[in-house]
Amino acid sequence: MQKLSVVVTALLLLSSLVYSQEKHEAHKETARQILDAALGEMKGYKILGELCEMGPRLSGSDNSIKAIRWAENKMHELGFDRVELQPVMVPHWVRGPVESLTVSSGAEKGRKLAITALGRSIGTKEEGITAGVIEVKTLEELRNIGDKALGKIVFLNGQFDPTVTNTFSGYGRAVTHRALGAIETGKAGGVATLIRSVTTRYDNVPHTGSMRPYAAAIKKVPGAALGQIDADYLSKAIKKDPNLKLTLKLSCKTLPDAQSYNVIADLIGTEKPDEYVLVSGHFDSWDVGDGAHDDAAGCIQALEALEIFKRLNIRPKRTLRCVFFMNEENGIKGALEYARVTEEKGINHIAAIESDRGAFTPRGFSVDADSAIIAQMQPWLPILRMASIDWVRKGGSGVDVGQLRTAVSRIGFVPDSQRYFDYHHSANDVYEAVHPREFEMGAAAITILAYLLTEEGLQY
Amino acid sequence: MQKLSVVVTALLLLSSLVYSQEKHEAHKETARQILDAALGEMKGYKILGELCEMGPRLSGSDNSIKAIRWAENKMHELGFDRVELQPVMVPHWVRGPVESLTVSSGAEKGRKLAITALGRSIGTKEEGITAGVIEVKTLEELRNIGDKALGKIVFLNGQFDPTVTNTFSGYGRAVTHRALGAIETGKAGGVATLIRSVTTRYDNVPHTGSMRPYAAAIKKVPGAALGQIDADYLSKAIKKDPNLKLTLKLSCKTLPDAQSYNVIADLIGTEKPDEYVLVSGHFDSWDVGDGAHDDAAGCIQALEALEIFKRLNIRPKRTLRCVFFMNEENGIKGALEYARVTEEKGINHIAAIESDRGAFTPRGFSVDADSAIIAQMQPWLPILRMASIDWVRKGGSGVDVGQLRTAVSRIGFVPDSQRYFDYHHSANDVYEAVHPREFEMGAAAITILAYLLTEEGLQY
Repeated sequence: MQKLSVVVTALLLLSSLVYSQEKHEAHKETARQILDAALGEMKGYKILGELCEMGPRLSGSDNSIKAIRWAENKMHELGFDRVELQPVMVPHWVRGPVESLTVSSGAEKGRKLAITALGRSIGTKEEGITAGVIEVKTLEELRNIGDKALGKIVFLNGQFDPTVTNTFSGYGRAVTHRALGAIETGKAGGVATLIRSVTTRYDNVPHTGSMRPYAAAIKKVPGAALGQIDADYLSKAIKKDPNLKLTLKLSCKTLPDAQSYNVIADLIGTEKPDEYVLVSGHFDSWDVGDGAHDDAAGCIQALEALEIFKRLNIRPKRTLRCVFFMNEENGIKGALEYARVTEEKGINHIAAIESDRGAFTPRGFSVDADSAIIAQMQPWLPILRMASIDWVRKGGSGVDVGQLRTAVSRIGFVPDSQRYFDYHHSANDVYEAVHPREFEMGAAAITILAYLLTEEGLQY
Repeated sequence: MQKLSVVVTALLLLSSLVYSQEKHEAHKETARQILDAALGEMKGYKILGELCEMGPRLSGSDNSIKAIRWAENKMHELGFDRVELQPVMVPHWVRGPVESLTVSSGAEKGRKLAITALGRSIGTKEEGITAGVIEVKTLEELRNIGDKALGKIVFLNGQFDPTVTNTFSGYGRAVTHRALGAIETGKAGGVATLIRSVTTRYDNVPHTGSMRPYAAAIKKVPGAALGQIDADYLSKAIKKDPNLKLTLKLSCKTLPDAQSYNVIADLIGTEKPDEYVLVSGHFDSWDVGDGAHDDAAGCIQALEALEIFKRLNIRPKRTLRCVFFMNEENGIKGALEYARVTEEKGINHIAAIESDRGAFTPRGFSVDADSAIIAQMQPWLPILRMASIDWVRKGGSGVDVGQLRTAVSRIGFVPDSQRYFDYHHSANDVYEAVHPREFEMGAAAITILAYLLTEEGLQY
């Protein structure tokens, strides 16, 4: 640790030689104006309201296309220099109208449990799957279950570890059940998989999300998530009656890939138009709730960055680009296509910033780049701190900008993580769950970093 | 800045000489256990629920005494080494049953507006005060109003500046209207003062809080706060009809001082029992809502620090003391009495930590102490970071521990500030507004700092 401190300090002193106090004060003044614009007028928050009112934006859905058109119009209306729809084919999974899990034996026969089908799941036949249930706590347990899961519904009752401080780490561990439950159930000869919703909130709202694609050689079985309260109910009910039967009906299915688009807008740089600073979110969402935190908010924070430049009449020295990536949730096809075109055209991204961890109060920026690049950002910390950013450090960036391997730096906006998984992938994720000040503080933090990057660039 | 960095680095290196890597790792392990205890079991959050269910705890109220008895019992029940009620006389202001503001002229005659009397306000005569209204934006404007406020209700329609990042700074500026409005109105010959509620949330729930004591030579006039929506309504209504009349009825009054108590519990130190590390909150609240964030949460976080020591079987080397201060909201009599007794008895507090900024995600600790003292805490940062603490720096501490001038260090726990004034002093401040994880993360941060202080002490 101490050695590292010395190196960082040395790099910091070095950087300070090329970055004068005068410039620093001028940038601080601009940062102040950016904060005033964001927090004072809440324009982005109002635009977020318009978007959320349109409902969810699952890849391939009519509503996602409607929202893409709205975004294109909005970018034109805001007067950005260039607006482009970048075509991309995306997976087209649909939930369909039928989704139910019913107790079908014993005293509580007929009781409905709260579920949501998992993305990529196959449906059931029309009369559903009626079977006994076996509960396991871990994938390990399921892998070693022998023949006990044969013909059964497997209930993967894993917990989101509440003791992990950063909920994204807790999520990373818990989500393997959602990702792999159906595959492992298929291997074990089960007929369907149910998981406890992967969430930090105790209520009965089920949380959806992707399963990993079915493996070719393994029997495909459907997968769904239970609300936490009903997961507890089911666990107790099986203990009382080990022969309990459930009936699962799902009408979800995967249609042929659909035409979709990344949405791109630019403010063209006045001095180095071929150096790009990208701000982004992903525009698709799950089909429950409005995908407000995940990730309408990230998109509109990126949009507001450009809008604030316009509002304050700041002409960026380098090109400031806003991208709404399509299909982050179940395919990443938008980001992959954007990366492909980037490489084909040799577009030079000096930084690609993504906001996809909810619109909570800013904490830091996590930068995937060489340490010498990250050291160049440290002198900006007193400015970023004005927008509640306490650190800029090496780490992962985001699912979409992470595909941009040619970028000089990939940067994840890191807000506070405690509430995100209360809402994530569920009907709880609506406009009202986004706090106006926290949203705008995030927009300001991203705008200030984008401003510093377009002004100062990076030595690479 | 650079010079300061060098000094801080030097102090940091110096401190590291007396603080071995081995100890550091052992402390990290204990911190991990503290986090597991807090976040895994949520025991403090459940105790907070018990307290909030009892309702608000305004100084001098029967309910505050009931809650004090509950706290005393709870501390005994948890098996702390010493439990003490420290007597203190406190102001006894009561709201009484009548509180209304009614439009009493024009087309909307009879319309009720949402208000709450301000602490220390006198009441009106039974038939109320009926008068015209004059709106001002600032105290400055009111001070220069000449004779225009004579016989009028003065409506101080000031804004909580939304562009200030730290809401406590925004509050500090806006709250002068609440503190001084009635006094300045009295000076100007007005008959009552109405302020726009001092809050970051746009709804119609009015926010109470203290006025400064009336000045002897100036006419006493009552003061109340309007909900934000009705403040907007009133402003428009006056513009439409400058002769609009309102009727204000308040039954609030100040009774003779009442007997109350600070509640104190100790875990006695095994090596240096005469060195105290104090953790605290204030136990009184306003009489609307449950005072959940302000400051039941701070008290129970302090209580949980001792409880976690007990649960994990950690015997502190120095005495760990929990104090629930009484009467922070309208007199600070509890803290003043505690400080008086401290000086009288020569009690040596090496640190006095206060949590009174809401139970949101931890950001830092603000330390009121000599820089050499604060430098000794810097090597602990990697440990504190486990509980979401990004910094320990020089700054103000808290209203109560701020009275302890003889303490080696006074420390304010600083959680994220964005939501606090949404709830503060209003009916919004209830148990449900406290997020379980954020509350427990704060409890863990305070417990870890208290642990490090009791283990390592401070060189002073």
